[in-house]
Amino acid sequence: MSATSSRITGVHTYDIRFPTSREHDGSDAMNPDPDYSAAYLVLRTDAGDGVEGHGFTFTIGRGNDVQVAAIDALRRHVVGRRVEEVCGDPGSLHRDLVGDSQLRWLGPEKGVMHMAIGAVVNAVWDLAAKRAGKPLWKLLADASPEWLVSQVDFRYIDDAISPDDALALLRARADGRVEGERVLLERGYPAYTTSPGWLGYADDKLVRLAREAVGQGFGQIKLKVGADLADDVRRCRLAREAVGPGVRIAIDANQRWGVREAVEWVGALAESDPYWIEEPTSPDDILGHAAIRRAVAPVKVATGEHAHNRIVFKQLLQAEAIDVLQIDAARVGGVNENLAILLLAAKFGVPVCPHAGGVGLCELVQHLSMFDFVAVSGTTRDRVIEYVDHLHGHFVDPVRIRDGHYTAPTAPGFSAAMRPEAIATYTYPGGAFWAADLATRQEQQGMTA
Amino acid sequence: MSATSSRITGVHTYDIRFPTSREHDGSDAMNPDPDYSAAYLVLRTDAGDGVEGHGFTFTIGRGNDVQVAAIDALRRHVVGRRVEEVCGDPGSLHRDLVGDSQLRWLGPEKGVMHMAIGAVVNAVWDLAAKRAGKPLWKLLADASPEWLVSQVDFRYIDDAISPDDALALLRARADGRVEGERVLLERGYPAYTTSPGWLGYADDKLVRLAREAVGQGFGQIKLKVGADLADDVRRCRLAREAVGPGVRIAIDANQRWGVREAVEWVGALAESDPYWIEEPTSPDDILGHAAIRRAVAPVKVATGEHAHNRIVFKQLLQAEAIDVLQIDAARVGGVNENLAILLLAAKFGVPVCPHAGGVGLCELVQHLSMFDFVAVSGTTRDRVIEYVDHLHGHFVDPVRIRDGHYTAPTAPGFSAAMRPEAIATYTYPGGAFWAADLATRQEQQGMTA
Repeated sequence: MSATSSRITGVHTYDIRFPTSREHDGSDAMNPDPDYSAAYLVLRTDAGDGVEGHGFTFTIGRGNDVQVAAIDALRRHVVGRRVEEVCGDPGSLHRDLVGDSQLRWLGPEKGVMHMAIGAVVNAVWDLAAKRAGKPLWKLLADASPEWLVSQVDFRYIDDAISPDDALALLRARADGRVEGERVLLERGYPAYTTSPGWLGYADDKLVRLAREAVGQGFGQIKLKVGADLADDVRRCRLAREAVGPGVRIAIDANQRWGVREAVEWVGALAESDPYWIEEPTSPDDILGHAAIRRAVAPVKVATGEHAHNRIVFKQLLQAEAIDVLQIDAARVGGVNENLAILLLAAKFGVPVCPHAGGVGLCELVQHLSMFDFVAVSGTTRDRVIEYVDHLHGHFVDPVRIRDGHYTAPTAPGFSAAMRPEAIATYTYPGGAFWAADLATRQEQQGMTA
Repeated sequence: MSATSSRITGVHTYDIRFPTSREHDGSDAMNPDPDYSAAYLVLRTDAGDGVEGHGFTFTIGRGNDVQVAAIDALRRHVVGRRVEEVCGDPGSLHRDLVGDSQLRWLGPEKGVMHMAIGAVVNAVWDLAAKRAGKPLWKLLADASPEWLVSQVDFRYIDDAISPDDALALLRARADGRVEGERVLLERGYPAYTTSPGWLGYADDKLVRLAREAVGQGFGQIKLKVGADLADDVRRCRLAREAVGPGVRIAIDANQRWGVREAVEWVGALAESDPYWIEEPTSPDDILGHAAIRRAVAPVKVATGEHAHNRIVFKQLLQAEAIDVLQIDAARVGGVNENLAILLLAAKFGVPVCPHAGGVGLCELVQHLSMFDFVAVSGTTRDRVIEYVDHLHGHFVDPVRIRDGHYTAPTAPGFSAAMRPEAIATYTYPGGAFWAADLATRQEQQGMTA
């Protein structure tokens, strides 16, 4: 089969779940017992080169099967497409998926169906980058401003940024790309770590991990807050004592509060000099975030990991509701929609500090921030990518952290591929881990019956 | 099994699809070929009385299977619950469903998972009303203000309406309930009709149906717009000529435009004196709706059928973005969340004109407006429920329209139950209609092969 006539032949889906709830890893005020999971897909082609596209939606356990069903529902748009066309213009697939007139009713552009679109679109970008022999960040950074703008859907955001605005932003940065890439490869991209701060951790573990983080070169850590005010006051003090005055401490309420409660609670924690308050309230409450921001300054307001599309980000910026914009690589409609969001952030001059962690979110999102540094914003000032040291070993090309920085990936692709043995072990419920787990439970039930 | 110890024993789900796309019924600028569908569920109990609870999510075809999978994912929260407890306090189930810490990640409170919650919650309300021997509107209208307030989740909206605010609104109306119920039973609730205005209809059909609507006593009709401006100008003129100056003409763009385009397009149609412009842009664009409203006055702005939860409605009201609030019975988290939205609308003094049509949306939403009239707003001034004359025959207790008004249902329940023969015929893909359809297609393919 020649390269020009090859087609996508299959969308293979997997319900992959890791039993993270048993260690309280990832516990926060709204998510006490997450089982980090991925609704995972593999695109196969008849090109004969063995190159596949991998993508996924991150979930925290129950409902991962619903997410897989949503990806399955998109198969008809993907199978049969010409590989060269779809890899040369992922935006055309993105628009077809978002525009499916019947599936659109299930959103539009939000929730399960939109995350499924993101997983499929990201798998195409993985395939495209592998075929180009480049890591995704470099594929994007090498692209022309015109082509990048062609990949963005400006529907519903052109009152805030026009294609011409976007083109001007990208062209203004074009001359700096070569030097930007050199700096990136030399220094990497700054990270902060959430590993010390999970709510389920005891105080001594928090203090130990916070000190270790500073020793490892991180300039910022993050603590989960929002379950109990007295606990939060104590934990923030302990963390501040552990890291000293020069390290930033972000706090994250994971949507726990209403507007008034957020203002009061952050006020009570201000003594420990938090750098930002993340997700103080519902991700849908744009005006609420704006009210909180006005009230808690100089503490900054950050949100975005649950902002469901570019239209929400547009309004967060228009309403001056956030100081820090947190993209997520696997919640919105994939790379194309994240290009729109990065351009919006650049237009409004708001720094982007991605959400990561979970399953593979660090692997994906590093590419977007690195592209942003090389080709859009041109700076890492006040910009950090979240880092959580969970589950990276299950990936073929895991993130590498050095001196508190993500090192730039060099392998072709989007770093999305999981190792085959991880898929075989953690596919739910038939993989080796879950099958054994189920057998153990049945045995225990038999003993107590 | 005694009534007090009976439990919910099963959540039975059905993927039901009607082939409406073949007649262009329901066609609009964003949805050219909908196959009106329902992800449908039946709650069964061991009470031995044969009473069931029915509920559904409306979709327009593809993805109805994903919606069914989402309802299935909620089964573990429902099966085994005591019937008396859950029917006496549906709010407890509503909070458990919305609060599931793992499923929450798939929203939160939006899209496929949230619509599934709405379907399950509405089925419980159907069960509760049947057990009480009352139509749902009367179950609600007879309830105490304190109990009604206990059914509302004020999380993320208490900066706009507090429980005390809600209690005061309901108490202020308490004395008027008896008279309100008398008026409702005598006159019914005003309706408007969308039947003339589908985009796929020829001009002569539009004119004929518009005249018929006036003859049937409707004081308002609605036209779909947004595909082609010249067509819209012509169709609006034809409709205005057909109905005369005294009948309101609403226009509905089904999210077709960006902010600037909406302002220009509505400006061009203003000569035909449209009453409201519905869904001019993305349902997520609160600030966009506010900008459009400021620009197109005195044409009113209406939206809500795709507003995904009470937090979006709160902001539409806070931002003064809408003149008309359009609830939908089956998109948000069921009756409980719609109680929150009705109370918000009352607090802000904005009239509620529900979205209906589709499959069974008229049947459901009439109960909410009738409750609102009797126990909350106390008026039908500038309030109309959408009416579309499709698919009612498939329901056990279909809506009845008389002189342009919905007559108040008297049968116990939420009018949600479909006739068993409709379920058997239109279940996809195994029901009698679809099985025969598939056989015909295969035969045709065989002939052309």
